[in-house]
Amino acid sequence: MTLPFTLPHIDDLHDAALADRLQHVIDHKTKPLGSLGRLEALALRIGLILGTEAPALAQPQMLVCAGDHGLAARGVSAFPSDVTWQMVENFLAGGAAVSVLARQHGLALTVVDCGVARDIAPRETAPGAARLLVRKVAPGTRDASAGPAMDAEQCAQALANGMEVVRGLPGNALLLGEMGIANTSVASLLLARLGGLPLDEVTGAGTGLDAAGMERKRAVLQQALDANAGADGPLEALVALGGYEVATLVGAVLQAAVERRVIVVDGFITSAAVLVASRLRPHVLQRCVFAHRSGERGHGLMLAQMQAEPLLDWGLRLGEGSGAALSWPLLQSACAVLTQMASFESAGVANRTD
Amino acid sequence: MTLPFTLPHIDDLHDAALADRLQHVIDHKTKPLGSLGRLEALALRIGLILGTEAPALAQPQMLVCAGDHGLAARGVSAFPSDVTWQMVENFLAGGAAVSVLARQHGLALTVVDCGVARDIAPRETAPGAARLLVRKVAPGTRDASAGPAMDAEQCAQALANGMEVVRGLPGNALLLGEMGIANTSVASLLLARLGGLPLDEVTGAGTGLDAAGMERKRAVLQQALDANAGADGPLEALVALGGYEVATLVGAVLQAAVERRVIVVDGFITSAAVLVASRLRPHVLQRCVFAHRSGERGHGLMLAQMQAEPLLDWGLRLGEGSGAALSWPLLQSACAVLTQMASFESAGVANRTD
Repeated sequence: MTLPFTLPHIDDLHDAALADRLQHVIDHKTKPLGSLGRLEALALRIGLILGTEAPALAQPQMLVCAGDHGLAARGVSAFPSDVTWQMVENFLAGGAAVSVLARQHGLALTVVDCGVARDIAPRETAPGAARLLVRKVAPGTRDASAGPAMDAEQCAQALANGMEVVRGLPGNALLLGEMGIANTSVASLLLARLGGLPLDEVTGAGTGLDAAGMERKRAVLQQALDANAGADGPLEALVALGGYEVATLVGAVLQAAVERRVIVVDGFITSAAVLVASRLRPHVLQRCVFAHRSGERGHGLMLAQMQAEPLLDWGLRLGEGSGAALSWPLLQSACAVLTQMASFESAGVANRTD
Repeated sequence: MTLPFTLPHIDDLHDAALADRLQHVIDHKTKPLGSLGRLEALALRIGLILGTEAPALAQPQMLVCAGDHGLAARGVSAFPSDVTWQMVENFLAGGAAVSVLARQHGLALTVVDCGVARDIAPRETAPGAARLLVRKVAPGTRDASAGPAMDAEQCAQALANGMEVVRGLPGNALLLGEMGIANTSVASLLLARLGGLPLDEVTGAGTGLDAAGMERKRAVLQQALDANAGADGPLEALVALGGYEVATLVGAVLQAAVERRVIVVDGFITSAAVLVASRLRPHVLQRCVFAHRSGERGHGLMLAQMQAEPLLDWGLRLGEGSGAALSWPLLQSACAVLTQMASFESAGVANRTD
């Protein structure tokens, strides 16, 4: 398939000299060697992404991409499609989990209508409040159980939108969020197809399906895989099975990677976008911090596909970017320890006796 | 053993009506049921401790208790005893991990000399800087491998000091920290004795012992258990095997529990203090949030003794209260979600279709 979309080049961040310098700084802080555990690994990663021994996270951006899905009409979710636009309104009004957590941590919140079925009225934004961008490719995807969810041109448009949106955002850190009734189905389909995994192992209850609902969901997803046989490459799978919010996120991830932003990945759906992006450009993963292992079945397998070690294991399964926002101060702590802790020398503390 | 110390009464916080009301609030937020996972459990716990459906954490206090140990002379640590006072100076100068993290999160930092071998000069404290309190029972404990580490009167004094210090602190949350070269030995001894566990399973490398050091440490700890056979109750074990910083922390935990403060427990050593306190007054545990599972061998078993589910599993093993400080914003997030998220009704979002 030829998409009217040019994949950006993404540098290999491998820099053994910088890694050595960062490790030296970490190892000479006033603490036993390695005693800050994963906080040290996180500090090292952020330093490598930002290319400095003294990383400072600046103007973090929470990007919540929203879209609707033709699959929703097949009864794959416990909630009706209308909840997509209603939750976008909730994000903008400041009442959703991601709104609350973004406010707590000073994350600028941008909500993108990538393909919500209903039009959402643009509005004036108060300073500090969430901002709406309309980058709607279409009012929802087609039903993937009957054929491709999008055209190649539509997918390319969503990818370009994601890149353009990130280019317009300040700062050096991008937190990923999403909203879209039925988009755990999309993530499961992408994981099944790109990971070569059985649907049973990658399909979860989403917002809360019961056993009968789960059986229905799996059957519909199998139809979607069958209806899109041969769409095996990452872009082909994205066109055939994806959603507009997922494709926009793929573009956003690629652009953020180009710019060496720290990319904070949330749960199952944003991880699916990163999976697609990393199959296109593997060095994307060097820029990613995975916030948490979700309670959604399949997320553990998704993370394993990317050798990702998430920060939290809290059984979150809300999406929106809520887990990414929740984890944000842990990244700030990693930078603070790296840049503010004393060394044995500067503090006059004796090092070990052996 | 009769200690010249009166154990305070600690209420049972069990309140089914409040728990129901809290769960109702959580379940009507704009999110699928249970989808915020452990953040919901944390919100429920904090609400129960503070006795309200709208908990607000106020003026959090990081209390770092420091002391030296006669056992250190037996070579049970990779670092010399002088590091205890040097690190206290580092806390006060603002260069230690706990200093950095406390500053990041606006935690007031109080360092208590509970029994440091060297005298630490009192000093003027700038607003917002760490404060030193001198509550020194003795310049370090005696060598527990040759008999009791303290007298009963000394232990009672440390317990009373801890209660008095907490009575003087504002706010409704207490974060526990500690410093004391050789105090992983103390924690291992208390766990072995109070948990009835073999020394091998509860003894770790502390600040970084090698294999020979570990063998020496285990042998010394076995001597300490033998030299204090019969000291089986929680207070008896604390007198025989404990440290002044641990005993002061036990008093602090009891007083914080009396006052229904949220108690944020750090790693292996502060957990040992909570273990002792909870053997004296089991309802103490209702007030505790365990910040993390440490990388120190034995901490997992210690947590299991208290049926504790820690928030983070990051292989931290620094102590100081660093893990408690690191986890603090997660507690704030739990409260923010509880008090600031919209309900389905207030946001006009459709609930599930079944």
